[in-house]
Amino acid sequence: MEKKKNISMAVIKRLPKYHRYLQELMKNDVDRISSKELGEKIGFTASQIRQDLNCFGDFGQQGYGYNVKDLYKQISLILGLNKDYKTVIVGAGNIGQAIANYSRFAELGLFLQGIFDANPKLTGLRMMGTEIQDIDNMEPFLQVNDIDIAMICVPRINAQKVCDTLVAGGVKGIWNFAPVDLVVPEDVTVENVHLSESLLTLIYLLHKS
Amino acid sequence: MEKKKNISMAVIKRLPKYHRYLQELMKNDVDRISSKELGEKIGFTASQIRQDLNCFGDFGQQGYGYNVKDLYKQISLILGLNKDYKTVIVGAGNIGQAIANYSRFAELGLFLQGIFDANPKLTGLRMMGTEIQDIDNMEPFLQVNDIDIAMICVPRINAQKVCDTLVAGGVKGIWNFAPVDLVVPEDVTVENVHLSESLLTLIYLLHKS
Repeated sequence: MEKKKNISMAVIKRLPKYHRYLQELMKNDVDRISSKELGEKIGFTASQIRQDLNCFGDFGQQGYGYNVKDLYKQISLILGLNKDYKTVIVGAGNIGQAIANYSRFAELGLFLQGIFDANPKLTGLRMMGTEIQDIDNMEPFLQVNDIDIAMICVPRINAQKVCDTLVAGGVKGIWNFAPVDLVVPEDVTVENVHLSESLLTLIYLLHKS
Repeated sequence: MEKKKNISMAVIKRLPKYHRYLQELMKNDVDRISSKELGEKIGFTASQIRQDLNCFGDFGQQGYGYNVKDLYKQISLILGLNKDYKTVIVGAGNIGQAIANYSRFAELGLFLQGIFDANPKLTGLRMMGTEIQDIDNMEPFLQVNDIDIAMICVPRINAQKVCDTLVAGGVKGIWNFAPVDLVVPEDVTVENVHLSESLLTLIYLLHKS
């Protein structure tokens, strides 16, 4: 399916946006759309959209545009949404709870297999039907469960240690909410959600304007 | 303080990271650091660090490096952290609760003035000492309170309407957690935390590797 092997992170970061807009178009029963119209919706130029999508294949048709449903399906495939991913959440605080309650998980093929926390007051409780286990159970749990993605929602000072245990347990994808840049081997992917940094950016832009 | 007026978003997005690393260095009683050492910590080149910081002023000293405390203070000033900002949270669901419980708010000069939600089951309850009010109270509330920053944590379909009310009420900064690109006037700043897009990026990178 892929035409080029070295696709820039900038293009990759735009793919989920295409996915979201195409899903919305489908909901609104739009069958086809030109790169110009799609660009106007997303706020990209038509040429950028054509360039981006050309990285992955030939989707559009001159004079017709894109078939919305086909393009949505193709982008879903490119994103890897045709597979299932087993996940764990580490840290059952506010962010961990918000993530556990995230309604799109199943739609995206994510299946929550375990939740771990160091706080004995939380262990034994259930979040979305999954029991919160003591963090010490995580290592043996990972030995018998193939986990693809872990969400790290623990305080900063514990994040690297948790990450090391996850990596040793075979986890290859980390969605990290702790305000720290994790050190991982090359074959492990980390995607950060650094809320503080986002907020500081907003404050800066507000302050300057 | 600023040397150049047109600072790229890429540089701006790196400022919070400098702020975080410098804060950590201060906690570890590090008094001074070279751009090379700072670069190794953050994962940038020394030259990038010098270039970035030169956008805002002359901070380093040849042969000495940066005074950590001074640079931290300067970057705090650049980021606008010397001011106070009044905030509201709209949407008291999981994300709204996580945000309300965010411990660094006061440290960053953010003061929560109100929480609003459309769910009558939530109104009257308290989050971090602040009563959750009915969303219909927001418009009059904004008329008598000067709010700087609003956190939008409502479902996608309600986000633009909420945003319009906030903007009409004089709010100039929006921290948006709804998976939608908000339309705002030029003098309003939006910073998005699009969790789905972050997760889809992770799935893509995992799927490809």
